[in-house]
Amino acid sequence: MRQQSINASPLYKIVNPKSIAIFGASNRYGSMGTNLLNSLQSLGFEGPIYPVHPEEKTVMDLTAYQFVKDLPAIPDLAIIVLPTRLVPEILDQCGKKGIRHAIAVSGGFTEVGDDGQKLQEEIIRIARQHGIRFLGPNCIGAVNPSHRFNTTFFPYEQAPGFIGMASQSGSFITQMFDYLKRFGLGFSTGFSVGNEADIDLVDCLEYLGACPNTKVIGMYIETIRRGRKFIETARRIVPHKPIVAYYVGGSEAGRKASLSHTGALSGPDRLYDGVFRQSGVIRAYSVEELFDFCWCLGTCPRPPGNRVIVQTNSGGPGAVAADVCSREGLVLNPLSEKTRQALSEYVPSTGSVNNPIDITFVRNNLDFFLNIPRILLDDENTDSLLIYLLMPDQSIRRAMEAFGITGEKAVVEAEKFIDEQTKTVAKLIREADKPCIGFSFYTRVNRFVKNLQDEGVAVLSSPSRAAKALAALVKYMECRDRMIQSSD
Amino acid sequence: MRQQSINASPLYKIVNPKSIAIFGASNRYGSMGTNLLNSLQSLGFEGPIYPVHPEEKTVMDLTAYQFVKDLPAIPDLAIIVLPTRLVPEILDQCGKKGIRHAIAVSGGFTEVGDDGQKLQEEIIRIARQHGIRFLGPNCIGAVNPSHRFNTTFFPYEQAPGFIGMASQSGSFITQMFDYLKRFGLGFSTGFSVGNEADIDLVDCLEYLGACPNTKVIGMYIETIRRGRKFIETARRIVPHKPIVAYYVGGSEAGRKASLSHTGALSGPDRLYDGVFRQSGVIRAYSVEELFDFCWCLGTCPRPPGNRVIVQTNSGGPGAVAADVCSREGLVLNPLSEKTRQALSEYVPSTGSVNNPIDITFVRNNLDFFLNIPRILLDDENTDSLLIYLLMPDQSIRRAMEAFGITGEKAVVEAEKFIDEQTKTVAKLIREADKPCIGFSFYTRVNRFVKNLQDEGVAVLSSPSRAAKALAALVKYMECRDRMIQSSD
Repeated sequence: MRQQSINASPLYKIVNPKSIAIFGASNRYGSMGTNLLNSLQSLGFEGPIYPVHPEEKTVMDLTAYQFVKDLPAIPDLAIIVLPTRLVPEILDQCGKKGIRHAIAVSGGFTEVGDDGQKLQEEIIRIARQHGIRFLGPNCIGAVNPSHRFNTTFFPYEQAPGFIGMASQSGSFITQMFDYLKRFGLGFSTGFSVGNEADIDLVDCLEYLGACPNTKVIGMYIETIRRGRKFIETARRIVPHKPIVAYYVGGSEAGRKASLSHTGALSGPDRLYDGVFRQSGVIRAYSVEELFDFCWCLGTCPRPPGNRVIVQTNSGGPGAVAADVCSREGLVLNPLSEKTRQALSEYVPSTGSVNNPIDITFVRNNLDFFLNIPRILLDDENTDSLLIYLLMPDQSIRRAMEAFGITGEKAVVEAEKFIDEQTKTVAKLIREADKPCIGFSFYTRVNRFVKNLQDEGVAVLSSPSRAAKALAALVKYMECRDRMIQSSD
Repeated sequence: MRQQSINASPLYKIVNPKSIAIFGASNRYGSMGTNLLNSLQSLGFEGPIYPVHPEEKTVMDLTAYQFVKDLPAIPDLAIIVLPTRLVPEILDQCGKKGIRHAIAVSGGFTEVGDDGQKLQEEIIRIARQHGIRFLGPNCIGAVNPSHRFNTTFFPYEQAPGFIGMASQSGSFITQMFDYLKRFGLGFSTGFSVGNEADIDLVDCLEYLGACPNTKVIGMYIETIRRGRKFIETARRIVPHKPIVAYYVGGSEAGRKASLSHTGALSGPDRLYDGVFRQSGVIRAYSVEELFDFCWCLGTCPRPPGNRVIVQTNSGGPGAVAADVCSREGLVLNPLSEKTRQALSEYVPSTGSVNNPIDITFVRNNLDFFLNIPRILLDDENTDSLLIYLLMPDQSIRRAMEAFGITGEKAVVEAEKFIDEQTKTVAKLIREADKPCIGFSFYTRVNRFVKNLQDEGVAVLSSPSRAAKALAALVKYMECRDRMIQSSD
């Protein structure tokens, strides 16, 4: 299995540039180019940035240059956020200066019809002539937080993550900054590919497959332009890195929408299902699923099979998880006799040691979050564990009050208590050789959930979402095994 | 269509008691009964509460009584949170005192097997003998925030809402307090029915159908014990109030889980689909869908048909919304010539006036959020509108800075600006005679989203979720029309 070096990719210089020329930034707040420069600066990009502007002497406190040819050095990357009609000329000037990589953010190309189509052909011709490789046009740029690089017009404020993303919608890069942050997640690298006039989804896939910061690849797809190459590339990646794709365009309205969005023709669901099956790519059916699946596939150990135990202290969420697991092809076996024996000291008479297990009530939190899951992960009839995570901050504070600790001190002590418990629980889950996925209706406002997520535990937003993500993980294992066998 | 008076329901006194006796509360923090008393007190229940306790003289600063017979008055309601074996005796004492309504929170009845079954039969017998109507056992109680009444062990902290809920899982009452609050929603009244030894789901349905605070009824169902009565009751309610149900138990694992949860037998999906179809009940497939559907069905005007326009300034979310709409049976028609004409002054050359409409960019926010939707809601080829709501706080602050307003002043002015815009937009949406459902990946941390939700606009968490909720609304209209026609 030969793996392309990441430096060989045309995308390497695009998301790891040492220096950048930017066209379209000004001192006017609110303009797209200025916002974009702002994002770059606020993430702390460390190399020189050269704004090119016909009139301004400085742009956002940076020395500006009237023409590309005036730049004191040849930047690794040009970012173009100009009115459509100016793009060809500027790209040509970039080529003459010796710039070999570009991001064309400007829209108004194939996506608007025949005139745009002609302009797009022109920029392709110019780029070829100079050997320029470029992302776009009609894209939102790219983000590579570990290089402090963000050319989108939204600030990237969380730590670098492990999800590599290639998207035919810019929103599913930029709007996801905030979305992912709410789960303690982030991007390793994210590409908005736009019209894919030069660099396309397959190139991104290749790059992300080789990217050491990327543990899982997410894709938002409205069309695949190079089907055969997509399949070949994915098949090389899947054995060592999972790929999850959300495909929109299988319906009539979806097809039309994507036509006017990126000017591309999509195909029926059946066709894409076939492509994904051949590629070993896991299909998601919503943005939420896309990232839920990426989360679990990027963090969990690989389950040997499809058997699961559901552990709750609440019947409803347990029944929901069990129901969805069952619908998704996972199997809930009865617990082994050994497991039932081992559990007996922790489960009260009101509880149930069927699967799903409903503990109903424990005197000691760590029984539920540590001792019981430890026993369940040892059960030889299961390959995985789904666990309901309910530790309300206020109930811990109340428990403190029971010991006479009140007021501000109760808050502090409760936090300390939760922090300690989380560390222990996270360690168990991280070190287990079977996947253990948490679910909770709480968000990161709940300290236990936040801590666990920050410690690398996947805590999903509901029993349904957790069950579906586990099913995706099992499906990935099956795909992977098939890929590996067929390449033997 | 005869509608039962709400006061005639056995549930009326249960969630509108003037006085309460509580069994199982103590001065021990952390015990379930104490938590429950705490919830009652912290919501500010206004009537007398009588703790009954064998030893304590006061419980949480309330005068405690050793025996029921000692109470200075006959309370409207008894709440029993005692060990299983004590429940029959206490219920009998309550009956002798003259108490006629109870909530039996205690578990350990049919859900744990034969012994529990016997105990449950015993409490039913005792209740009948005294004419006591009761909720439970093995339930979490009920909440009626406008009466400052909450007998669950979680505090209810938001305003009363419009969603009436009957649930066979206590978690889908209590855990939903926090969940709903995150969308600015709340319960009108919520019932956890537990084992339904006496009062069952159908009684709750009847009550919620008559409850003036309830605009929509949500149900979490693992089994329906009185099928025919359920259908009859729902058919009476559906013409004037929508009912949404999440049924778990259609799968093998779901069936087993609900058996050990509430001791009830569920049936195959097909059977329940039939029941829901006959009843005019809209089926949800997750907790998220349940409340998304309730939200839109409880707030939106009724669409005359299934035609929708999707308005975005971003291709991806538009394509997703269109794709899901299409899969869910909604139709995206082309805009009328008149609409296209009217839009022309607002849509830039990079935009698309196909449906979904992708405005890409507007100079003035109110064009996107007010002027364009106003035109679209007037389009004679549409029955509804889905609109992408993206107004990042920071971009408004940046716009302020463009006018030389900086620092803390920019924050304040941006907030004022957003508040004003929201009011105008919310007014348009509230007064429209067609449903207009918003969607955004932002949460209430975003001021625009929070304001709109607080002004009564449904702003759902993603394009998929909004499209599915709109489809549920259209489906409800079809059910309703069918009900009304067949009852003519």
